[in-house]
Amino acid sequence: MFTAYDKNGDYSYALGAFPTIELIKNRPEDVISVAVSSKLKMTDELKTVFDSVADKVITDDKSIERVSKKGNVFIVGKFRKRYSGFSSESHVTLVKPSDAGNLGTIMRTMLGFGIKNLAIVGEDSVDEYDPKTVRASMGAVFSINIEKYPRFEEYEKTHKEKKYLFMLGADRTLADVNERGSFALVFGNEATGLPSELAVKGTAVVIRHSKDIDSLNLPQAVGIALYEFTKAKFN
Amino acid sequence: MFTAYDKNGDYSYALGAFPTIELIKNRPEDVISVAVSSKLKMTDELKTVFDSVADKVITDDKSIERVSKKGNVFIVGKFRKRYSGFSSESHVTLVKPSDAGNLGTIMRTMLGFGIKNLAIVGEDSVDEYDPKTVRASMGAVFSINIEKYPRFEEYEKTHKEKKYLFMLGADRTLADVNERGSFALVFGNEATGLPSELAVKGTAVVIRHSKDIDSLNLPQAVGIALYEFTKAKFN
Repeated sequence: MFTAYDKNGDYSYALGAFPTIELIKNRPEDVISVAVSSKLKMTDELKTVFDSVADKVITDDKSIERVSKKGNVFIVGKFRKRYSGFSSESHVTLVKPSDAGNLGTIMRTMLGFGIKNLAIVGEDSVDEYDPKTVRASMGAVFSINIEKYPRFEEYEKTHKEKKYLFMLGADRTLADVNERGSFALVFGNEATGLPSELAVKGTAVVIRHSKDIDSLNLPQAVGIALYEFTKAKFN
Repeated sequence: MFTAYDKNGDYSYALGAFPTIELIKNRPEDVISVAVSSKLKMTDELKTVFDSVADKVITDDKSIERVSKKGNVFIVGKFRKRYSGFSSESHVTLVKPSDAGNLGTIMRTMLGFGIKNLAIVGEDSVDEYDPKTVRASMGAVFSINIEKYPRFEEYEKTHKEKKYLFMLGADRTLADVNERGSFALVFGNEATGLPSELAVKGTAVVIRHSKDIDSLNLPQAVGIALYEFTKAKFN
């Protein structure tokens, strides 16, 4: 029987067919079990995907009900959380992100632009394996390598890549940057942004916008920066 | 007394201080009334903003409770819906958008990049004045001119601007486009995209991404396109 999600536990849940399929395809070794509803209509795609974890699939309506609040969930994958290190590679760094939906959206966009490494800095950051994050990522979380650091100091000890720090006060604009090597794109919290003292840790960059808004929302800013930094690769 | 929001009615609600302030600042003539909670802590900013609609501000906990499901709302602005035409100007066109949060995010990003005109095509589109849209826009909806069209045919009769139709199958990439005149950026529904037969209506464009995702999410795609089309203005 599944128990309610506990952010301090070592497992979490993928709610719904889409993220569970991504889980099974990308991290079969991390699958603990898959609960399916007695109402599930089996499809050929599902059959093929389930084959690889056949001994872990159980019909279990009560488990689904317990971990999913929405009525339209017919498949739930229970999986072990994983933190995979990465070194000297281009990545995104989020300092104290606070919204699960935003974090999931960012993971999906990272995958879309081929940047699969994510560092999360700050002990009070939103939970990267919260079922809400998993769902918003549409399963992209299972293709992303995640590292966590309590403070920026620990992060920068491990990562010497050239850092671009996105902050409103910067002189340099995104359009001016022309980076061809490895890079780290660093973004602050949704409400407060990056502390200005971090500007000295690399190149401070701003995505210029009109005065009619205070700032772009975080996933928009990350998406635009990723597009610009990976443009040469995809166009 | 406020009544529950009715999408067929001619008024809606701004829930919370932030969108209500934007409402009063940008569309004072559309304010019907402003309900404030007896628990509201008045600030200097609020006092100044309320001054311009002083005779419409009432303390009314029950009205707030009725239209807002969340407990942390202390101000609700009731306003008349407005549709303001625009002609021969750069704009964003959304064909059958389905998510209120996405629509609000897009409005905010449009405002951020100085594109204040929005055409919504399709009778089954999400409600542009749903309180959820208003909230997600953080009040940007009060700075956007909105036109609505039941079908693409009616839209294109009014709008002859050069159209860029964002679709996955396009040959042209966003990075190739170099537009300096007026433009219309046209995007399809979150799940289904633009119908491919619309490609002939202008220039079909794709934002290239990896094969690891099916498509970028809609606000991300709109944000990246707006950034690229307005770059020369802001950088």
